[in-house]
Amino acid sequence: METVSLDDKNSALVIIDQTKLPGSLELISLKTPLEIYGAIKELKVRGAPAIGIAAAMGLYLSAKSIEETEFDPFFKKLAGASAFLASSRPTAVNLRWALSRMEASANAAKNLPVPEIKRRLKLEAQKIKDEDEEICRKIGENGLALIKPGDGILTHCNAGALATAKFGTALSPVYLAQERGYNLRVYADETRPLLQGARLTAFELMSAGVDVTLICDGMASFVMKSGRVQAVFTGCDRVAANGDAANKIGTSGVAVLANYYKIPFYICAPLSTIDLSCPDGGKIPIEERPAEEVTEMWYKKRMAPEGVKVLNPAFDVTDASLVSGIVTERGILRPPYIKTIAEIFQK
Amino acid sequence: METVSLDDKNSALVIIDQTKLPGSLELISLKTPLEIYGAIKELKVRGAPAIGIAAAMGLYLSAKSIEETEFDPFFKKLAGASAFLASSRPTAVNLRWALSRMEASANAAKNLPVPEIKRRLKLEAQKIKDEDEEICRKIGENGLALIKPGDGILTHCNAGALATAKFGTALSPVYLAQERGYNLRVYADETRPLLQGARLTAFELMSAGVDVTLICDGMASFVMKSGRVQAVFTGCDRVAANGDAANKIGTSGVAVLANYYKIPFYICAPLSTIDLSCPDGGKIPIEERPAEEVTEMWYKKRMAPEGVKVLNPAFDVTDASLVSGIVTERGILRPPYIKTIAEIFQK
Repeated sequence: METVSLDDKNSALVIIDQTKLPGSLELISLKTPLEIYGAIKELKVRGAPAIGIAAAMGLYLSAKSIEETEFDPFFKKLAGASAFLASSRPTAVNLRWALSRMEASANAAKNLPVPEIKRRLKLEAQKIKDEDEEICRKIGENGLALIKPGDGILTHCNAGALATAKFGTALSPVYLAQERGYNLRVYADETRPLLQGARLTAFELMSAGVDVTLICDGMASFVMKSGRVQAVFTGCDRVAANGDAANKIGTSGVAVLANYYKIPFYICAPLSTIDLSCPDGGKIPIEERPAEEVTEMWYKKRMAPEGVKVLNPAFDVTDASLVSGIVTERGILRPPYIKTIAEIFQK
Repeated sequence: METVSLDDKNSALVIIDQTKLPGSLELISLKTPLEIYGAIKELKVRGAPAIGIAAAMGLYLSAKSIEETEFDPFFKKLAGASAFLASSRPTAVNLRWALSRMEASANAAKNLPVPEIKRRLKLEAQKIKDEDEEICRKIGENGLALIKPGDGILTHCNAGALATAKFGTALSPVYLAQERGYNLRVYADETRPLLQGARLTAFELMSAGVDVTLICDGMASFVMKSGRVQAVFTGCDRVAANGDAANKIGTSGVAVLANYYKIPFYICAPLSTIDLSCPDGGKIPIEERPAEEVTEMWYKKRMAPEGVKVLNPAFDVTDASLVSGIVTERGILRPPYIKTIAEIFQK
């Protein structure tokens, strides 16, 4: 089963409905832009790379349904659909990156007939997915150098196969280490409020036979202090030009703890996650989500007093100074990030 | 309604069943040592001072039911009941402290008739409770000096009225500040796995009209980084002679974060929480609780994969170096704790 795939014959985007995991593993077909927007917003598909792929494929499906035959009106409708999909979630930059790439692909073919543009959009969406798989594989190879056999690895949220086309970002080195018999022990933060660690990371690592132990987010300090963790790996939703990194809420706290306990803290992310137009973490928009995610737990059962005030930021920003390295498909970036990030884009 | 009280006429310990909060506020009567042991183990009554009081009253009820008329056989049975109650939870020292005080009270009266010893045990248990109320009031007065009007206060778990005879430890300064119109903003960590922050702290602060905002544990870093928090107050289950402090799992992480964001981190605890016989935090036994508390959330609904490994330590130890002050009934202890703790017990 693939996290995200295109069923062109039925004009549908097919995803694993991640809100049903780990209870049941179900594929669902999404046809309209509204359905795709809803699936991204409700986290049926999530993870920065995976939502980029889903949005790209969704934009192709939108393009397919546009009846205009002239480029300008065709592109106007395409851009409208793109803006709509882009508005589903504000923090991860891959969503906008993938949609911009699709728009650029259409623009580059503006002198060709619209059906040919549609064909190229399909190829571009598929290419974004294929490239993601290859990028994740390379992130795994690069990250493997940071792991020793027998290590304990702590991760937060889910940056695994379910967050990408395949392999994952933060979990890609783990899968590769597993293949090579490294006997890692992975500690998965459950990651409240939406429990991506408990529901998704624990699920996919267990499925792959990795030794995974589930902990509550508040237990990370205990686990690190006890000497069980030799490195932290997380994914990322947007890296600013100075190396500040937005990721799932709680990540910055894990980074502060790792720093205190002298454990290296690594971010794993494709270069498409780096937003050069964003100077620092303070400029990254942070999505605020509904209070019920906090007050009603996962199964919609109230466990907090009625009417209690809630803060529910979906992401936080980790200071660049806490990041030991950013593992990309083109190698591991090291501080000072303002310099090394600029350099890798000049190569 | 009182958190813990004695109904001597019915030979019962009456407690608020805290596992039912905030959904319903129910008193339950406990008669046998097994019922009292169970209520402590299942956290129907919790909080280091409150379980001390519950155990003391429980031991009096056990004494009342002992039919021996000679001191030695009477005391042997009393000591057995005491050891049984003491084994309900291993980390909080107040439980053992209260039971030892009860045993000492019986021993001091060994030449008196057993009925008179029983009468004294009742007075001693009541005195432990009355003293706790007075101690908590003084902790509030001493802690108030650390708060300014308009401050944001972050707390973890519940160290409020529900954890003590009245007022609480960490929340006692908050209640006093509220009375004086300080307009505090309190951030309550939900405190997974058992959600004492969401269920109890949010409940009791809202009931008192305090401006409280509920957050997930992983949001503490975000909230601190944003400048919303001017001080952290938590309770404590056991302080070692060097100032290392065991408290609800997650507390040490909050302390590391406060240290990183340069926010003072205060522990509020009666002197009975300080265990001079324990040289440092490494010697404090840490209770490991059932995996289901992590995998099934509060409402017994599975949200993690079947068979996943889990760690569930109920407490962690905060390094003394991270503690800005220990607020006691006899003033605020400051580092170096190895010196200031020894001194306060010599006064």
